[in-house]
Amino acid sequence: MTNHLRHRILGIDPGSRNTGYGVIDSDGRHSRLVASGCIRVGRQPWPDRLGLIFDRVADLAGEHRPHDMAVEQLIFARDPTAALKIGQARGAVLCAGLKAGVTVHEYSPKSVKLAVVGSGGADKAQVQHMVRILLSLAQAPGEDEADALAIALCHAHSMGIPQRKRAAASWRDFRP
Amino acid sequence: MTNHLRHRILGIDPGSRNTGYGVIDSDGRHSRLVASGCIRVGRQPWPDRLGLIFDRVADLAGEHRPHDMAVEQLIFARDPTAALKIGQARGAVLCAGLKAGVTVHEYSPKSVKLAVVGSGGADKAQVQHMVRILLSLAQAPGEDEADALAIALCHAHSMGIPQRKRAAASWRDFRP
Repeated sequence: MTNHLRHRILGIDPGSRNTGYGVIDSDGRHSRLVASGCIRVGRQPWPDRLGLIFDRVADLAGEHRPHDMAVEQLIFARDPTAALKIGQARGAVLCAGLKAGVTVHEYSPKSVKLAVVGSGGADKAQVQHMVRILLSLAQAPGEDEADALAIALCHAHSMGIPQRKRAAASWRDFRP
Repeated sequence: MTNHLRHRILGIDPGSRNTGYGVIDSDGRHSRLVASGCIRVGRQPWPDRLGLIFDRVADLAGEHRPHDMAVEQLIFARDPTAALKIGQARGAVLCAGLKAGVTVHEYSPKSVKLAVVGSGGADKAQVQHMVRILLSLAQAPGEDEADALAIALCHAHSMGIPQRKRAAASWRDFRP
């Protein structure tokens, strides 16, 4: 039924506590949900948290065998301590993807919002709503899952567009 | 000749461009240099840089088979963008160590300086000088290598001290 949706994408939204993930199949215009969830790490020491994130992302890549992985590119951060923590989690996520042999793509938060909502300044509720619509879900996914799925959808809509033009083109490409 | 220096430690100083490393053998009081150097990553995209750092640290762990890995604990950072980059590099380093089955230890910059120089406010030149003395080197190692070796020496001097007392005790324990 859905074998025309040939391209499998793993979207990840890394965080120091919660790392959202979403797997979709897509043909670049239409997409369907394969799996989504959240990797929650507790209060254990940092190296152990990173090990957990690395292992779970490696498991997801092994289980779902995505063609591509898409991760939000963090350019700005207000709080240096938080940036350091998110940076570490991001390092673990990217290394796990690379070690699993998956091509890793990065998108700015603005281009992710543009791709799924059509506005670079969209709020979390709008992203959740549009992810539900685009994937024909019965209900809106949680925030972390929605963000990860939005990143995956952003990559889906950018496929076939040269890397340097993606941020600008992602919404235009999606619009039906 | 040096088989009493039974404990092998890999010290790493992660950076977004240069990641220093140093391998020492130690009995907790006396140490000798095994290897040191710097992993330099260029201007390639971030995922590739992290993959390089991960692979090189994994190679070092495989080649030298350290008992422990010691990494500086970054608590403060002034610039959020720099913190994000260093955080990513740190995530790659820690994951590579964990995946190689090495126990990872973290030390604050202050406790590293205390352990090798005796002052938490020591500058880079002092650290380089004391690393040269403590390892009986013909000349002072480069900054990144010296920092990595200082972290390894800090762990060496802390061995046998309970984790929660290490920062305070590391210098006292070293003093002959």
